[in-house]
Amino acid sequence: MAGSFDADIAASTRVRLARNYADLPFPGRMSRVQAKKLNERVASRLGNREFTRLDMASLSPNERQVLVERHLASRELCERPEGMLLLSKDEKISIMVGEEDHLRIQCLLPGLQLEEADNLSRSVDAMLSVDGYAYDAQLGYLTACPTNVGTGMRASVMLHLVGLSSTGSMQSLLETVGKFGYTVRGFYGEGTQAAGDMVQISNQVTLGLSEEEIIRNLGEVVRSIVKKERSVREAMLKGDSGELTDRLNRSLGILKFARRMSSEEMMRRLSDVKLGLSIGLFEGMTAAELDKLATLGQPASIASTLTGSPSSAQRDEARAKLLRVGLKECKVF
Amino acid sequence: MAGSFDADIAASTRVRLARNYADLPFPGRMSRVQAKKLNERVASRLGNREFTRLDMASLSPNERQVLVERHLASRELCERPEGMLLLSKDEKISIMVGEEDHLRIQCLLPGLQLEEADNLSRSVDAMLSVDGYAYDAQLGYLTACPTNVGTGMRASVMLHLVGLSSTGSMQSLLETVGKFGYTVRGFYGEGTQAAGDMVQISNQVTLGLSEEEIIRNLGEVVRSIVKKERSVREAMLKGDSGELTDRLNRSLGILKFARRMSSEEMMRRLSDVKLGLSIGLFEGMTAAELDKLATLGQPASIASTLTGSPSSAQRDEARAKLLRVGLKECKVF
Repeated sequence: MAGSFDADIAASTRVRLARNYADLPFPGRMSRVQAKKLNERVASRLGNREFTRLDMASLSPNERQVLVERHLASRELCERPEGMLLLSKDEKISIMVGEEDHLRIQCLLPGLQLEEADNLSRSVDAMLSVDGYAYDAQLGYLTACPTNVGTGMRASVMLHLVGLSSTGSMQSLLETVGKFGYTVRGFYGEGTQAAGDMVQISNQVTLGLSEEEIIRNLGEVVRSIVKKERSVREAMLKGDSGELTDRLNRSLGILKFARRMSSEEMMRRLSDVKLGLSIGLFEGMTAAELDKLATLGQPASIASTLTGSPSSAQRDEARAKLLRVGLKECKVF
Repeated sequence: MAGSFDADIAASTRVRLARNYADLPFPGRMSRVQAKKLNERVASRLGNREFTRLDMASLSPNERQVLVERHLASRELCERPEGMLLLSKDEKISIMVGEEDHLRIQCLLPGLQLEEADNLSRSVDAMLSVDGYAYDAQLGYLTACPTNVGTGMRASVMLHLVGLSSTGSMQSLLETVGKFGYTVRGFYGEGTQAAGDMVQISNQVTLGLSEEEIIRNLGEVVRSIVKKERSVREAMLKGDSGELTDRLNRSLGILKFARRMSSEEMMRRLSDVKLGLSIGLFEGMTAAELDKLATLGQPASIASTLTGSPSSAQRDEARAKLLRVGLKECKVF
């Protein structure tokens, strides 16, 4: 049931590079004219029809929120009047322009694919570096925030740790991980809760390590957590007196029949169904398909499918419908 | 959706006649020999292969409890060493012999069928009366308890009042009914709770009224309650902001997927599904079929399908399976 790239546990992998051009002040000090110049420069470099250009100022608040929910843009970018997002057609590459740094090159791949995401980010980086980055021979890439100086790289993996979470051993594991220089965050980044038992693990250190080392070390840590999570899941199933099986089946039944559902409940029940798929109780769908449903079911994404200003109840109804239809192929094994 | 005999609201109708033979002391004063004589007399009168004879002493405690759950025998009969039950093949007629009275002739029909149950009980009564009942020209049939003297008749209808229950108007209605001489009880008779919004309404008065009057008056009361319940259900559906529809659908989903279920939860969720069938949310099954599942899902009935002394968890698992399979044909409209 592991599937490719451990996708039943590792939902997605992201590599993000922070870059600034040497000939322009950092975004915090740019004039409007300079911000526009930056946008045009980046857009023209990638003007090969592979990227969609999204200027924050031309988007509605809900459209911007959809980008945040889909992990394509940060809240900070959305608030910048000159902020721009370049999004590849397959949505694997998103480049935030004019956020905290001139460039935030982000590559987002399903499952655990650190090397692949690293390679993809390098290829984009190479295209954009021709205009000359702010780079110090000793320090490396210069960034707005000192925590990014050096490689400018943040690599992260989103993990679905429902087993470790339910056996209460998540906290100690994550504290250990923290001691080794990794940051643990909830589903929507720093300061957010771990919705549906999803946690994001990323490197904290960007200075004094090469990109290869960051990727390799994070990969080792994540693979050991994935292994642990997998053994906990197996033990849960073996040790189940019937309660777990009942809970997971009920969650599937509720997702298939409910007419209203909050996003919080959705995350919790999808987490159950993903666990059920992973331990072989269910079949017919993949964890990645369920993750996609979770993304489409976020508040702004749901609102974008409705007209006017939908009420909370209307969103809950549209979400329930999305899930009923979306889970049609998910069957009890 | 009303179906025949208002079966979506009126689950079943019962007419019970209390009778005693003039030549034998009342059961409380019978010797063992007299009790045996009584049993043989009744069994031989009905010894036409249409009835199954069940002697309480030869049944296991669980087998006796199954009869109670199915409303075929009383707890009191089960506790009498010489107690006997004669049960017609279609289970519409059950005759308790040697309970509080010599005979308790019971006719149980689905839906609201007071006249039919009355006719059926008369035909059985006619067969058994040839041995001479204890009868007083002024008082009527003599019985062990003075509340049964007269017609010896108790007519009752089991009603599924989920609408009146959920709008909080049940209590006042039932108090009114009580003032007019009717008794309201829970699913398992006197002193029991109204499980799954099921209440039994029966005549209190047996003296000073003819059988026809009892049947006619109760029929009028029940039909007015059924009408009220039906209008409340329609109003609930019309006034539903989505919460009710969601609740009923979730209950169906849980019944179709759960792997463990208590009998209390079963009654509650089946009540929801019956309401859903009644107001047209679901299709493919009848209220009577759901009532049958509720009966088969009672603790002793479930235990009778398992070997040894099943634990509570094992019963809950067998019940959940019964419901999953049993509700297969129940679909969202």
